[in-house]
Amino acid sequence: MLSLQDLRDAHNRIRPFIHRTPCLTSRTIDQMAGATLVFKCENFQKIGAFKARGGMNAALQLADSERRNGLATHSSGNHGQAVAYAAQQLCIPAYVVMPRTAPQVKKDAVRDYGATVIECEPTIVAREAGVANIVAQTGAALIHPFDDDRVIAGQSTATIELIDDNPTGKPFDVIMAPVGGGGLISGTALATYYLSTTADGSKTRVIGGEPEGAADAVLSFKSGHVETAPYINTIADGLMAPLSQRTLGYIRQYVSDIKLVNDAEIRAAQRLVWERMKIIIEPSCAVPLAAVLRYRNEFERQTIGIILTGGNVDLK
Amino acid sequence: MLSLQDLRDAHNRIRPFIHRTPCLTSRTIDQMAGATLVFKCENFQKIGAFKARGGMNAALQLADSERRNGLATHSSGNHGQAVAYAAQQLCIPAYVVMPRTAPQVKKDAVRDYGATVIECEPTIVAREAGVANIVAQTGAALIHPFDDDRVIAGQSTATIELIDDNPTGKPFDVIMAPVGGGGLISGTALATYYLSTTADGSKTRVIGGEPEGAADAVLSFKSGHVETAPYINTIADGLMAPLSQRTLGYIRQYVSDIKLVNDAEIRAAQRLVWERMKIIIEPSCAVPLAAVLRYRNEFERQTIGIILTGGNVDLK
Repeated sequence: MLSLQDLRDAHNRIRPFIHRTPCLTSRTIDQMAGATLVFKCENFQKIGAFKARGGMNAALQLADSERRNGLATHSSGNHGQAVAYAAQQLCIPAYVVMPRTAPQVKKDAVRDYGATVIECEPTIVAREAGVANIVAQTGAALIHPFDDDRVIAGQSTATIELIDDNPTGKPFDVIMAPVGGGGLISGTALATYYLSTTADGSKTRVIGGEPEGAADAVLSFKSGHVETAPYINTIADGLMAPLSQRTLGYIRQYVSDIKLVNDAEIRAAQRLVWERMKIIIEPSCAVPLAAVLRYRNEFERQTIGIILTGGNVDLK
Repeated sequence: MLSLQDLRDAHNRIRPFIHRTPCLTSRTIDQMAGATLVFKCENFQKIGAFKARGGMNAALQLADSERRNGLATHSSGNHGQAVAYAAQQLCIPAYVVMPRTAPQVKKDAVRDYGATVIECEPTIVAREAGVANIVAQTGAALIHPFDDDRVIAGQSTATIELIDDNPTGKPFDVIMAPVGGGGLISGTALATYYLSTTADGSKTRVIGGEPEGAADAVLSFKSGHVETAPYINTIADGLMAPLSQRTLGYIRQYVSDIKLVNDAEIRAAQRLVWERMKIIIEPSCAVPLAAVLRYRNEFERQTIGIILTGGNVDLK
């Protein structure tokens, strides 16, 4: 169980390597939602996503002897870039196992940070085997994308900053993040639990957002067991992973609810942010706003912090 | 001739109605340019563009008796929205003459601010006749998009903020803006002249950027007369207007140079900003960065402020 001091330590540890990203607001979107929304812009983060925080913290917490041979992970997306970035900062090698079907632009981004890309078949079994193999060959340290308290502590720092920098003058009633493997929402929930109360002194609630086309977390949240999604089909490609026991534990303890939204709602929310806020966000990133707009009655008149997780979309 | 006090007064006057937009930097783009670039993000401004500043200042400088019957202008783009926004803030009517060929999204945006859109044939003669007609009918006050010292004073305030908020700790060697009708570059040049010096105490230079496919300003700058472009064909659709005597006067006195770039360079610079900075900018907006990259030798190792003018692109 991560303490407040663990989160503070993570923040101090990674501060030289990350951006303190801005919090933005939009009067138009507030009017549509009937609420006061604060967007924490992790799309402006190093590597274009919050994952730089968790990857950097995990890498920095490794002993020199553990990380001497480099870092390894498997990823089809932002976590691979995060590990590559962390390794580059520490002048050690990185090995990222990626499905051969991953977009060329993502493979190039990982290589741009000086990492070695190892291609594998696009299955979870092949990915895990690929990483086990590279770890055995090189002695590199494995950094899991979310099932790791050091990663979760790193992700929590976005929420620490959101709470510190809240520009509205009104305490948060709710803080929201999307749910994939659960690393971000776990860190978000821990930071909120330790640091945020509402105007009437009760705890700020943390609410997750999940696509209907990858609805494992909402099932796991109800049953108390790690469940798989009934089907996987969504544009929110960063949110397909199932939870781990660890992240489910944090979610059951500190998250109030998980809201489902469909792809049309995600697209509409993403477009709203592009058009009205003039910033580029990934589809996964738009899930909490889509939930605020879909379940308007539950959210209106509240002050809501939303982690905008990243901006890595292929613009072609 | 606008004084420093005129610019300061404009800033105080419009402050309650505009955003103090952030200045952003990008290490990747700095590396590509070999320079230190500061981007003043007017794409985050009210109405999505700096034009809110000039329109608002001009409207506020009108006496009650002058603006009682509303505001009028002709525009195919952001100035129409700026006048509509200013009128909405002052609870007076606005009439915007727009070519019938203007994108539906632009007409809708003007109407969303409560203005009346009057469609006309897509010629400058029809537009001016349309405005003259509406002014005669309604008694509304005409606000020209650039040939007006009140508008120029309003546009100068973006540069006042850029100089105040410069996050680099190094004074600007150069400040850049795109050149259309010349209102923005005139305001930029005046604010820079009054408020910015380089590290060695000389005046910060102001350099304009213009598309090759609307190259009137570079000709006028050389000849000293208001010239028309040899041809008009560019994606930078906000930069097609010729200068006026007034703006040419300011440019000849306070601008050091105007650089030409082609559409491929504009597109590449726009894409770079979208991909690396995760913000949405219009093509017109990318012209100064395109010039910094094209004429790298002239700009490298300098600290350069760039006004990012707006983010109103049709995302369909």
